[in-house]
Amino acid sequence: MSKLHNGLAVWFTGLSGAGKSTICDGVEQELRNQGYRVEVLDGDVVREGLTKDLGFSKADRDTNIRRIGFVTKLLTRNDVVVLVPVISPYRAMRDEMRAQIDSFAEVYVSTPLAVCEQRDVKGLYKKARAGEIKQFTGIDDPYEPPLNPELECKTHESSVEDCVHQVVALIQSRTAIA
Amino acid sequence: MSKLHNGLAVWFTGLSGAGKSTICDGVEQELRNQGYRVEVLDGDVVREGLTKDLGFSKADRDTNIRRIGFVTKLLTRNDVVVLVPVISPYRAMRDEMRAQIDSFAEVYVSTPLAVCEQRDVKGLYKKARAGEIKQFTGIDDPYEPPLNPELECKTHESSVEDCVHQVVALIQSRTAIA
Repeated sequence: MSKLHNGLAVWFTGLSGAGKSTICDGVEQELRNQGYRVEVLDGDVVREGLTKDLGFSKADRDTNIRRIGFVTKLLTRNDVVVLVPVISPYRAMRDEMRAQIDSFAEVYVSTPLAVCEQRDVKGLYKKARAGEIKQFTGIDDPYEPPLNPELECKTHESSVEDCVHQVVALIQSRTAIA
Repeated sequence: MSKLHNGLAVWFTGLSGAGKSTICDGVEQELRNQGYRVEVLDGDVVREGLTKDLGFSKADRDTNIRRIGFVTKLLTRNDVVVLVPVISPYRAMRDEMRAQIDSFAEVYVSTPLAVCEQRDVKGLYKKARAGEIKQFTGIDDPYEPPLNPELECKTHESSVEDCVHQVVALIQSRTAIA
């Protein structure tokens, strides 16, 4: 069935502290101003409602992503723009999402590890370096960067505002408000 | 924020074999014909995407309902009518859903146990009686009927078509197509 539809999954991948949620917040606000239906499925929200049982092993991370993907698919096919700021370190899992969700764009928030670690807004890198947190992406757990993301946001070179505008432009190019 | 919205969660509770999914199928088709956004979150669909890890203990059943509720809330607030045909045997958990989801209606598919067992479409009652399935609602696990459902469907007295029409009328009275 061919039908104009406005749903789009925008999958923000990148290290902890890269700026994924900050960019999402700006994008969400701008899209709401423009009349879009928007949801943000960030890790904390989803963990409370959907994935409280999961840890940080590869299997648990994969299950986490699959559950988020399930919800994202349901929302996007009902014309919602879904912003997903989750580290999602494994390329295969992101590719699985791309294959499953009809309307999908990957945004690589490519802030280098050194910058993320210097910011360390939540103090997590310090704890990870001290061994107080295990399986921390970029420290003792892998991160596989996207090979062909629809967009790369370089928060270490551009302002948050510029990144937000880039993402909003991407979304506008892929959707049309009914 | 006051806003016209068309989302509604319609929670179908009742025993296995009561006719929840059959009614949902008819309602879904009719609503689509009328131009509604609709999703059906039935047990099988949700189990694959969201709750594969869960069994039938009370704790697991509660987690199952909470995850379905999380998704239902996201969809209804984006103007989707969400049909949820799940046994959901515990009153407290259904009341929790009612409290969390802005727009909610409970449909009690009240087919008596004897009728469900006689139908036994999936052969599950036979297995439960033989002890091959444990924790089967109505046999060796409790079912707590709703006290004040928005609607009761008596599939043992009315036709499926009548039940479908009743549910569709309920939904129309609670929503407005934009």
